[in-house]
Amino acid sequence: MEKILLSHGSGGTMMHKLIDSLFMRELGNPTLIEKKDSAIVEIGGKKIAFTTDSYVVNPIFFPGGDIGSLAVYGTVNDLAVCGAKPLFISLGLIIEEGFDRDLLEKIVKSISSAAKRARVDVVTGDTKVVERGSCDKIFINTSGIGAIYYPGLSIENIKPRDSVILSGTIGEHAISVLSKREGISFSTIVRSDSAPLNALIAKVLSVSKGVRFMRDPTRGGAATTLNEMVTGGRFGISIEEEDLPVTEGVRASCELLGFDPLYLANEGRVIIVAKRDDEKRILRAMRSDPLGRSSRVIGTVTKEYPGKVYMNTSSGGRRIVGMLSSEQLPRIC
Amino acid sequence: MEKILLSHGSGGTMMHKLIDSLFMRELGNPTLIEKKDSAIVEIGGKKIAFTTDSYVVNPIFFPGGDIGSLAVYGTVNDLAVCGAKPLFISLGLIIEEGFDRDLLEKIVKSISSAAKRARVDVVTGDTKVVERGSCDKIFINTSGIGAIYYPGLSIENIKPRDSVILSGTIGEHAISVLSKREGISFSTIVRSDSAPLNALIAKVLSVSKGVRFMRDPTRGGAATTLNEMVTGGRFGISIEEEDLPVTEGVRASCELLGFDPLYLANEGRVIIVAKRDDEKRILRAMRSDPLGRSSRVIGTVTKEYPGKVYMNTSSGGRRIVGMLSSEQLPRIC
Repeated sequence: MEKILLSHGSGGTMMHKLIDSLFMRELGNPTLIEKKDSAIVEIGGKKIAFTTDSYVVNPIFFPGGDIGSLAVYGTVNDLAVCGAKPLFISLGLIIEEGFDRDLLEKIVKSISSAAKRARVDVVTGDTKVVERGSCDKIFINTSGIGAIYYPGLSIENIKPRDSVILSGTIGEHAISVLSKREGISFSTIVRSDSAPLNALIAKVLSVSKGVRFMRDPTRGGAATTLNEMVTGGRFGISIEEEDLPVTEGVRASCELLGFDPLYLANEGRVIIVAKRDDEKRILRAMRSDPLGRSSRVIGTVTKEYPGKVYMNTSSGGRRIVGMLSSEQLPRIC
Repeated sequence: MEKILLSHGSGGTMMHKLIDSLFMRELGNPTLIEKKDSAIVEIGGKKIAFTTDSYVVNPIFFPGGDIGSLAVYGTVNDLAVCGAKPLFISLGLIIEEGFDRDLLEKIVKSISSAAKRARVDVVTGDTKVVERGSCDKIFINTSGIGAIYYPGLSIENIKPRDSVILSGTIGEHAISVLSKREGISFSTIVRSDSAPLNALIAKVLSVSKGVRFMRDPTRGGAATTLNEMVTGGRFGISIEEEDLPVTEGVRASCELLGFDPLYLANEGRVIIVAKRDDEKRILRAMRSDPLGRSSRVIGTVTKEYPGKVYMNTSSGGRRIVGMLSSEQLPRIC
């Protein structure tokens, strides 16, 4: 009998297969099959973004964040990348019996500060407690709704020659969680990049009408997100290895542990595909925001290799960058 | 160090204390502190209901339902009792590594039929997989949004002499789950009442402008829901023991197991408080719906005993009915 594996939750090819073969087949409707980070629905003529995410990160506290702030920012970002202003979030807690009240308080305080920072209100919630051993400490679901102010963002709009822009260095979130979990200490502590992107994105959208599509490269990393963009096959994306911003700390950790930073989860980064003519003004807007200081163009949409992401390597070669195919790091978010 | 206990998730007094002492203190905002089943928020001048619930029911299949349909109906009902038309729901799954793919398929099919029956679309989702032993089989979060069409429902509107109406027999959901979990078999199988109440509620709201407040008596049962209504203390509620509809199967199970049906969770029942003048037309509307056939008036809002629920017993006595104070049944939903 077929079993569910960790890789079915990885964000990579196994998860996409499960989604297509089961969820889309059974539950499919025009909104769901768009597979956006948020569903775009209409209520009384008003376009609203609606999204959900469960957080099972282990450990629940890590350098640069914790499960509470991560849950708030993750949902805020899923709304923001769809051109919505995040407004309201819900909070669903599943807590293991025996969990420390003090830790719960620390997490709730973190949720509170995160919500203030991201300018959203937690307006509804639910708490379930399960017997000892029936869940690992605490799981958090946040769903969110926002008002669409920049409609029409869609993979369908991406065109050859568009620029592919990344808002910062990659891999910090995954390395932060992993080193804490495994008790590995590197010479420099890598802190998670977990952060709310709505202010940064609002700046970009206020200076350009030429943004085609945005997505935050979380589970599966930048490589998987770029692959999601080219799926369908009308165009390819070429990226330049030497333009990929990776900190020394992440680079060293990856070399030691055998990870490729392109597949590592980020929780405060966004990949923006935009009309090439708008590239400069978008970069200027992004770099004016503390979360976008190291923004840069990392690639281009091409007619070559439709359906594929390929990388011009630092050594002068060229290679295909596939989607994450197995579970690189479970419970990273 | 204080620990989180199963009773913190019971729906009763311990949960209310946790909510007030932690969540309201740290996250409180005008919408959250209303503590409605759904938050009522405004987006672009449009009033929207937004709600969330996590489902951890054990076992995941029980007579009359399963974790999938339960998750859909629970969220649909939380929207409906706030005077909203349920429209869109999200689906967040946390699955234990090694869970059968076939069981997952069965649950997703059940979610699909439940959504069709309740006339809502699942528009967005998320799947996480955790290592074996880190969660018990599968947990489901559903959040939902709906459009308010009957604004102003509020505990604040309840007045002495209002009628308290219940849509059906009580306790079936809890007894169904419990007997399956414990492997107890009674002479008659008690099936869960889990069902979507939006059609029934729409009928009521179309015939009466005098509905003050509604709530579905889930965790903590009818006793807890009635107590939530009187909290604050301007009025009391008196109920008549002999008007409480309880099936023979539930009555027998309760006698055997020592439960009080008033504290047992229901998943397809609603308690409506309405202007006494509208009582008859509301009952007529309710009884015209398959889910409301055994609707009846079970009590009255009184000036006596403000802040209390009291019951005139079949034997001619009178007793105070408190809120659920401990965990009667964990993981009932």
